Amino acid sequence: MTSTSSDLGHTLLQRLDEAARCSEPGPGVTRLFCSPQHREVLEVIADWMRIAGLTPELDAAGNLVGRSDRALAGEPTLIMGSHQDTVVEGGKYDGMLGVALPILALEQLRREGHELPYGVEVVAFGDEEGTRFQSTLIGSRALAGNFDHDCLAATDAQGVTVKEAIEAFGGDPSAIASLARSRDRVLGYVEVHIEQGPVLEKRNHALGVVTALTGIERHRVQVSGKAGHAGTTPMEGRRDALVGAAEMILEANRVLHATEDFVGVVGKLDVRPNAVNVIPSEVNFTLELRSPSAEVRARGRETILEALAAIAGRYELELHTEQTYSAEAVDCAPWLINALQQACERTGEAAEPLFSGAGHDGLAMCELTDIGMLFVRCRDGLSHHPDEAITAADGDAATRVLMQFLSDLEVPGFR
Amino acid sequence: MTSTSSDLGHTLLQRLDEAARCSEPGPGVTRLFCSPQHREVLEVIADWMRIAGLTPELDAAGNLVGRSDRALAGEPTLIMGSHQDTVVEGGKYDGMLGVALPILALEQLRREGHELPYGVEVVAFGDEEGTRFQSTLIGSRALAGNFDHDCLAATDAQGVTVKEAIEAFGGDPSAIASLARSRDRVLGYVEVHIEQGPVLEKRNHALGVVTALTGIERHRVQVSGKAGHAGTTPMEGRRDALVGAAEMILEANRVLHATEDFVGVVGKLDVRPNAVNVIPSEVNFTLELRSPSAEVRARGRETILEALAAIAGRYELELHTEQTYSAEAVDCAPWLINALQQACERTGEAAEPLFSGAGHDGLAMCELTDIGMLFVRCRDGLSHHPDEAITAADGDAATRVLMQFLSDLEVPGFR
Repeated sequence: MTSTSSDLGHTLLQRLDEAARCSEPGPGVTRLFCSPQHREVLEVIADWMRIAGLTPELDAAGNLVGRSDRALAGEPTLIMGSHQDTVVEGGKYDGMLGVALPILALEQLRREGHELPYGVEVVAFGDEEGTRFQSTLIGSRALAGNFDHDCLAATDAQGVTVKEAIEAFGGDPSAIASLARSRDRVLGYVEVHIEQGPVLEKRNHALGVVTALTGIERHRVQVSGKAGHAGTTPMEGRRDALVGAAEMILEANRVLHATEDFVGVVGKLDVRPNAVNVIPSEVNFTLELRSPSAEVRARGRETILEALAAIAGRYELELHTEQTYSAEAVDCAPWLINALQQACERTGEAAEPLFSGAGHDGLAMCELTDIGMLFVRCRDGLSHHPDEAITAADGDAATRVLMQFLSDLEVPGFR
Repeated sequence: MTSTSSDLGHTLLQRLDEAARCSEPGPGVTRLFCSPQHREVLEVIADWMRIAGLTPELDAAGNLVGRSDRALAGEPTLIMGSHQDTVVEGGKYDGMLGVALPILALEQLRREGHELPYGVEVVAFGDEEGTRFQSTLIGSRALAGNFDHDCLAATDAQGVTVKEAIEAFGGDPSAIASLARSRDRVLGYVEVHIEQGPVLEKRNHALGVVTALTGIERHRVQVSGKAGHAGTTPMEGRRDALVGAAEMILEANRVLHATEDFVGVVGKLDVRPNAVNVIPSEVNFTLELRSPSAEVRARGRETILEALAAIAGRYELELHTEQTYSAEAVDCAPWLINALQQACERTGEAAEPLFSGAGHDGLAMCELTDIGMLFVRCRDGLSHHPDEAITAADGDAATRVLMQFLSDLEVPGFR
């Protein structure tokens, strides 16, 4: 059986197109944790897994796990994968590439007669983006044994809790603790992901090997003022929550622009009562902050939160802020960085070392095992957008690099 | 049959409490045009109308109209009323007071054996606030014969059109044109309303006679930028629609504060895609502007829209603005101002002349007939808020003034 280079790249893109059809209506891909679209895509992925010789299983946390026979037999196992979920109106590649690509690599190795001397698991994590519940890494934390059971009470926009959503999906919140992998059986965690940034495109390289992942924190900010009739309440003395929130957004943006190695966004904002002729009484917004440096992030957060409090005071608004998420920056394991770089070189690809400005499931998995990541160039550095794109040639290169990496890996002398 | 002063005031407040129970769940009263709560409250009002000797009928535009026998017989008729709808999380009195109070006044006159020598209609207009469709005065425009049939295509948040909503409610959009009253049969339009401002409370008077209504305009503002991953897109070069919108809100607020006789608000704002980790690609917000002076309003609008365009340019955002509503300032009829002032004086109440900063159904009815308005003091000048309140004593005074006004009115020599 033969297969040309471009065959693999095209098969990969076709599969990602197929997965992208499991989406809410609207531009791009919207696939939330424990949604009907999540269920749909798992059926698609389970089929891919079976072709690759993996046995698919839905776990208690809503992850789909595909295990090789050696993994099922309890042998030392390499975990690969990424998340199935997307942001609202996201793209086809963020997350799903890291599910489809390792399955395709395993399928191709099997077709070529390679038998790997260790177990493999490919996981489609249920939730990484945190789109539905604003609480992320539910699936990878479960495997890593650091699942936060408090997050089961978090609610989505309709008031459904994480617990209820997982139960309705066929998971079992009470069994999530038992999903934790045993450290001595796990060889490492490797994830393939689109870069989501402009570096590879600028340097004209298809692939990058990640050295570290950014630290991320998220805050919920509530600004409360007083509603009133917008025609009869004099401008003087109004306590308009939206005017205060607007100044807070501008000030946070100013601090972010002025600070090196510091990015962030107010991405979600809701106004109450949100009526054309009523002075806004309450605004709730999210503030996300990222930096490779814990110190930069802490200093930046402090500056912003102090500015928010000062603005609230000036407008006579009440301010309530709450940190809803935090993940420290994480280094990738040197031996996995080396192994991925060697695989790139043997395949004839440049092995661009890169820092990841995005968080990934590795932020949770690093507490269980060593992590490594391979980045794939994406068009215009764009992600979290319907126009997300990779080329078939780059997809092909990444698949061949992962096949090389998997072939070269040996259990004795691992690390 | 006897009835003390406070009886009328208490009955009035009890009825307004009863009507307030027809509301969506949540704080205050939320009752939208053609909603199940609208249907519910019309049953309550119809019962009041029957007790007062009026014959209730749901008209083609979703208004409930109660007619006296003389009105049914086609005799010259005085129209009274106000709107049944509320803002989101509004109060019990804005609108509904002007429905309940004239019905109670007519009931009491009837009980006292007064027979009015002219017809009366009390109308509970379906829509004045524009909460559901952002297009207001649907009901009063229908009666005034200036109904804008284009507004039938306006949609609510769920994509339901005005046409569909009215049909589902039992109205008939194709018959709305026929609701226009004949000018020579209408004596005038009188509305009782809470002041919605702080003037009466400050001057320690229960009632005010309105001299004019403010002019109002509303704009829909769309700000478009580019979505992107909030962690991997450098701060430089972002086109964040929410950051641009925040500066626009502050600038509009600055102009409004700096201009005499000019108020306004950004009351409704929606972000897309509205996710914690995605750069906002689009923000839609409403801008409402009010002034008693057409010139002040036009100049202020121009200043604000120019500033918005400049901000959009600076942030490389696309800006689209559209005026969705406009109503010129309107004077009340001198003969109705006089008649209401005389009624106040005969009842022993001060007749405070007042300007209305809020729009009312009179903005539409003035094109059909002369209008007059009686304002009732409200606690803290507050409206469009769950804490809206009037006292039983003030309600009683207003009911007695309206009874006096109705008793004194004679058809010959009218005007």
